[in-house]
Amino acid sequence: MDNVREMLENSPGAIPVDADLVAKCVEACFDCEQSCVACADACVGEKNQNELVACIRLDLACADLCAATGRIISRELAGDPGMAPNALRACAEACRICAEECERHAPHMDHCRICAEACRRCEEACQSLLSALG
Amino acid sequence: MDNVREMLENSPGAIPVDADLVAKCVEACFDCEQSCVACADACVGEKNQNELVACIRLDLACADLCAATGRIISRELAGDPGMAPNALRACAEACRICAEECERHAPHMDHCRICAEACRRCEEACQSLLSALG
Amino acid sequence: MDNVREMLENSPGAIPVDADLVAKCVEACFDCEQSCVACADACVGEKNQNELVACIRLDLACADLCAATGRIISRELAGDPGMAPNALRACAEACRICAEECERHAPHMDHCRICAEACRRCEEACQSLLSALG
Amino acid sequence: MDNVREMLENSPGAIPVDADLVAKCVEACFDCEQSCVACADACVGEKNQNELVACIRLDLACADLCAATGRIISRELAGDPGMAPNALRACAEACRICAEECERHAPHMDHCRICAEACRRCEEACQSLLSALG
Repeated sequence: MDNVREMLENSPGAIPVDADLVAKCVEACFDCEQSCVACADACVGEKNQNELVACIRLDLACADLCAATGRIISRELAGDPGMAPNALRACAEACRICAEECERHAPHMDHCRICAEACRRCEEACQSLLSALG
Repeated sequence: MDNVREMLENSPGAIPVDADLVAKCVEACFDCEQSCVACADACVGEKNQNELVACIRLDLACADLCAATGRIISRELAGDPGMAPNALRACAEACRICAEECERHAPHMDHCRICAEACRRCEEACQSLLSALG
Repeated sequence: MDNVREMLENSPGAIPVDADLVAKCVEACFDCEQSCVACADACVGEKNQNELVACIRLDLACADLCAATGRIISRELAGDPGMAPNALRACAEACRICAEECERHAPHMDHCRICAEACRRCEEACQSLLSALG
Repeated sequence: MDNVREMLENSPGAIPVDADLVAKCVEACFDCEQSCVACADACVGEKNQNELVACIRLDLACADLCAATGRIISRELAGDPGMAPNALRACAEACRICAEECERHAPHMDHCRICAEACRRCEEACQSLLSALG
């Protein structure tokens, strides 16, 4: 996602924090959404699908919150009365919950391992941006 | 949205709380998403658009979190390790923030008044379901 | 979704077709999105989940296109250079494809029957609005 | 989005076309969604917002169809009864419509130029995948 940083720098509003933190978090959110959608679909296609019911549900929920958060922090953050921190807190928590489930399956399913890593990166990026926003 | 309750009752999982609370909250989330999308669009079309910049942004952010939450609580709640409460908290807070902005414009713009009402109903429905989930 | 019609009538733009057709289609899109999300989740929770893989995937795809279309037609239609018809065609086709799959399971699974009905209503509402937009 | 290709290769299903075409198109969809959300927000913050009303609306519509399509083609394509081509056609058309509007503003607004480029890349990626799917 090469455009994120460039869009940020060419938008009329001020960026109230380090632009790299914002760009990294936007990218992590969309990346995690995509990984979660793909992991849920891969789980649905596995033969032991019955053991992956919780994983499918948490993947889909995490994808939904990452999608919302990726969009919200793509908009101007200066002057925000609290919407971005609110979304970031929920997204970080969703990523933590989903990562914990995917990590249980990671040793024997690579899509869960890759997805868990994307969740952990997104959790961390949300926490970093949250701290910076104060 | 007549189907919400019927889908709930015909799904294989147990419903851990009063099904009416779940159905009402699902409906309130999708309703609020639609009102926020329409209100943002109406604001964009107003002549005093420049005074509505914050309203447009908060409408779009609220729509995104309502969309995510409406989907998340449409899935099985029994056995959920915390995803639904996490989404409901963020959604209630998003609705509160958006309602406060829309209420400022409500006296002279009906789309903001209608949207503020949808936000307050959704905030309340999220809080009620959150309390019931414990 | 009582607000759809009221929001339409209180937006600054002209409505280029019968407002009832628009409101009905917006409602059908969000309704079908919700039914598809819930049906996919119910299928995931069924014991014969392995026979429902295609149904889960088509439900999720249909939900995604209904969500996009419900938002797109919630915005001003006057002056649209073709975005709404483009979305409506894709949504009607998604609903038809999903309905055909759900109808196969409808005789023995009520969530698929309810979902198929929501898909058919949405397909029809999209076709009606498409015809009216010309 | 480094994970797209790796998720594809570690999913249980067969990939019916060149995996690079799929990965490139998934990335282009999420990239275009993000650019459109950010461009709409930048337009809302511009002083000549009144001249950008169509651009804001088309950006938001294009973002919605890119989001849906990015998710749909992140799922297994083998055995798909037509959902992916249906979404890809609508997405390519949405990107074309949005690009044409953004290109009008591109000479004097960099966010519109960057967004138009993302739309054209996504249009092309959707057309390429569509051709490959046959």
